[in-house]
Amino acid sequence: MKRSEPFSCSLAELADRLGATLVGDGERRVSGLATLSDAGPDDISFLANKAYLKYLTQTRAAAVLIHPAHGGECPVARLELDNPYLAYAELSRLFDPMAAPDAGGVHPSAVVAGDAVLGRDVTIAANAVIESGVELGDGVSVGPGCVIGADSVVGDGSRLHANVTLYHGVVVGKRAILHSGCVIGADGFGFAHDGRGWHKIAQLGGVVLGDDVEVGSCSSIDRGALGDTVIGDDVKIDSQVQIAHNVQVGDHSALAGCVGIAGSTKVGRHCLLGGGVGLSGHLTICDGVQVTGMSLVTNSITEPGVYSSGTGAMSNALWRKNAVRFKQLDDIAKRLSRLERGSTG
Amino acid sequence: MKRSEPFSCSLAELADRLGATLVGDGERRVSGLATLSDAGPDDISFLANKAYLKYLTQTRAAAVLIHPAHGGECPVARLELDNPYLAYAELSRLFDPMAAPDAGGVHPSAVVAGDAVLGRDVTIAANAVIESGVELGDGVSVGPGCVIGADSVVGDGSRLHANVTLYHGVVVGKRAILHSGCVIGADGFGFAHDGRGWHKIAQLGGVVLGDDVEVGSCSSIDRGALGDTVIGDDVKIDSQVQIAHNVQVGDHSALAGCVGIAGSTKVGRHCLLGGGVGLSGHLTICDGVQVTGMSLVTNSITEPGVYSSGTGAMSNALWRKNAVRFKQLDDIAKRLSRLERGSTG
Amino acid sequence: MKRSEPFSCSLAELADRLGATLVGDGERRVSGLATLSDAGPDDISFLANKAYLKYLTQTRAAAVLIHPAHGGECPVARLELDNPYLAYAELSRLFDPMAAPDAGGVHPSAVVAGDAVLGRDVTIAANAVIESGVELGDGVSVGPGCVIGADSVVGDGSRLHANVTLYHGVVVGKRAILHSGCVIGADGFGFAHDGRGWHKIAQLGGVVLGDDVEVGSCSSIDRGALGDTVIGDDVKIDSQVQIAHNVQVGDHSALAGCVGIAGSTKVGRHCLLGGGVGLSGHLTICDGVQVTGMSLVTNSITEPGVYSSGTGAMSNALWRKNAVRFKQLDDIAKRLSRLERGSTG
Repeated sequence: MKRSEPFSCSLAELADRLGATLVGDGERRVSGLATLSDAGPDDISFLANKAYLKYLTQTRAAAVLIHPAHGGECPVARLELDNPYLAYAELSRLFDPMAAPDAGGVHPSAVVAGDAVLGRDVTIAANAVIESGVELGDGVSVGPGCVIGADSVVGDGSRLHANVTLYHGVVVGKRAILHSGCVIGADGFGFAHDGRGWHKIAQLGGVVLGDDVEVGSCSSIDRGALGDTVIGDDVKIDSQVQIAHNVQVGDHSALAGCVGIAGSTKVGRHCLLGGGVGLSGHLTICDGVQVTGMSLVTNSITEPGVYSSGTGAMSNALWRKNAVRFKQLDDIAKRLSRLERGSTG
Repeated sequence: MKRSEPFSCSLAELADRLGATLVGDGERRVSGLATLSDAGPDDISFLANKAYLKYLTQTRAAAVLIHPAHGGECPVARLELDNPYLAYAELSRLFDPMAAPDAGGVHPSAVVAGDAVLGRDVTIAANAVIESGVELGDGVSVGPGCVIGADSVVGDGSRLHANVTLYHGVVVGKRAILHSGCVIGADGFGFAHDGRGWHKIAQLGGVVLGDDVEVGSCSSIDRGALGDTVIGDDVKIDSQVQIAHNVQVGDHSALAGCVGIAGSTKVGRHCLLGGGVGLSGHLTICDGVQVTGMSLVTNSITEPGVYSSGTGAMSNALWRKNAVRFKQLDDIAKRLSRLERGSTG
Repeated sequence: MKRSEPFSCSLAELADRLGATLVGDGERRVSGLATLSDAGPDDISFLANKAYLKYLTQTRAAAVLIHPAHGGECPVARLELDNPYLAYAELSRLFDPMAAPDAGGVHPSAVVAGDAVLGRDVTIAANAVIESGVELGDGVSVGPGCVIGADSVVGDGSRLHANVTLYHGVVVGKRAILHSGCVIGADGFGFAHDGRGWHKIAQLGGVVLGDDVEVGSCSSIDRGALGDTVIGDDVKIDSQVQIAHNVQVGDHSALAGCVGIAGSTKVGRHCLLGGGVGLSGHLTICDGVQVTGMSLVTNSITEPGVYSSGTGAMSNALWRKNAVRFKQLDDIAKRLSRLERGSTG
């Protein structure tokens, strides 16, 4: 990857770009982005959460992105706007030294099949392998050590970081970001049992990722058994996630680290799955569902809302006592009912 | 990988191959395999689960693999047999365009130690690395970017997909399928504490995989501390699984995604571990045990059967109330006993 | 990697090296290390856990590392010392055939940027890629297929096994051991929502690993959003672990397999996180906390001690009944209170 020149910008320019109302010296320049407590006099910062108001009064930042409601409490220059967190996201990309497009070109050590089709300004880094029939759109960047299997397609502007693996026949949309170690299109886990042992079910489907998908490091998205595993547009997938064969994830959903989704489950649009959440197979989760961390979902969900399972952590001594009682819970409930009948009878 | 020619077959030939009773036109040819609802007139389909009977009447498939008990409900040609799912597995491999053996040969960019021993028809793809003393059996296929450590042995007919890593001294049986990103033989997690910090325990054992083992993408099987980590024949391991040092998994067991097994635990034969199951260390799980998804097992299991832990998902509002009560459960049980004594006293 | 010559040593030499009291023939030589039950007459063994006393009387080992309290029960020569497990750790490294430093040198197939700075005795294996501005300390060993991103720094004596990925700007301390498939420095999971969809927050921080850190296979440590993700000295991280952006882990802590730590959480020193433990984001876990396997921690912990959540496994039939009751638990508690008021009223 290529590192761009250091970025510097005046507050007036930033306000203009972000559509913010500037209160302070528009000529002042900033060259970095930092938290309220870490920011120095060349940095811009942001207040996106009231919990951090305590750091506002002492910030040394040149300026702060802030909601108008808190503008009066800001001791330095400020850029007022309705969604400071969104503005921070935009600034973060502006200040990203790695955001410059890669230089383009195919490293001599890369192995690219003669019939692969490369768009304009494609970068293929050292020791990458591009198999037969692959199509890479304009501006695609393939990191060192990546392997793209036969007949896979990667859309314009997508970036594969180092050591990503795509199997054959995988379709990746535009502007995807695939992080190192992720594997798209490995066989789903399908076997038939003959009473003695297992017989492999060849996984004949593929994987289709929509546009603007991000997949974290070391995550797995398996190919379909028959038909495809489908990830919608703008779906964000964290690290260490497993998505089994024929799963569908709707547009704009986000899956935090260590999520596991079993085969053929359909997750709706705008869903949020917390870290370590598990979904059983063949479920349907409707749009707008949030599941909190490490919950297990074994039934379909038909109403938007927040769902949970499990128990919170406590001291092990207390937990041991309670966990034993959990095994008696049905008995406890029945005894309670009996008592109630007795006391009212 | 090499893609084979499109496959086409008459229903009579298929019935013969599967030992099925054909009801319908044996001359009719099929060239694809699809679900009942997706199948078109050139496809064969299957009914393996009554839940899909509703799709049977409207299927456009040329023919359906079906149990004789449901034959009468099939609107198109049918191949009757006792285990349609098993027959589907066999057909899936027949229709797999990637099933053709790789072409054989060592890609010029691969780095193969001079003393490695290669069987007949071995394929070593681009940028793979084969270290000193490795032995690859007949028909082994090593994908792009794989690394096989010193003195490892891979049995006949095994396939390593792209970017698989075997450490030194790993033994893989025949017909293994190792998916991308899996790592076999990394150090087990062993340290001695001196009261101040950690001292590494070198992991001197190896890993032995039996025949017909499949390991999913991004899964880890660690080498033994002393003695080997041993995976039996026909063991199927999904993606994102962790198997710690000196674990033993018996023949024909299947481990779904995100399973974690701690050190020295022995899992019996014909066990099924659901997604996200965790087994503590130094346990013995007998043959024929099934553990449902995301359960934690902290004690050995001596009777075959189905085991579970955890709680199912509910609305977060309800869950919050109940989870708080879980911390009072022992107290609740004691108060109930007190009341019972009072009411009967 | 290079395999060293077989190691052999007299018991007198070993006793001297370990500071142990030898009881038996100091001239006797041993050339292997094995468990009490597996050891043969050329092996040394150890007793570190009373549970294994039953194997002591029948051991065929040449000698046993043992606490003086059990010396009298040892049927063969013995090396008495206070911490036999620690002594075993030291011996394990002595007997490790892979412990020899790598030969040094850059394999011709490796791609090393012209401005990378290599210390003395650096080994870069086949098909590794070292990007611009990287610094590798003395004795660093980079395995086959590794990718080290621009401007990363790896301290003296560190070893990256095959197919490790470091992103740009990652700092690794001295004597690190990074296992295959681990990814250090991928983007943290940061997005701002505009009411319709996600906007990426560029992850501008880095990752800093202290000295003597070990990271297991297929683990992910993400780079910070602003500021770094920081792993202290002597932190041991197992396989399949996810560490999110801006997490801090204190010195000497150990994280077992499949642990997940969400963003900005601070884990203290000398903490032990069991397999599959999940920590929510923005928590502070004080020094000396142990969390048992698969527990979920959603609140900060301010007192050292052992913490747990979840329920133990039971038969599925019993579990189903109890899990249903869990959803009624708050109701059960209220009914119990009502009864108590009735019975005392």
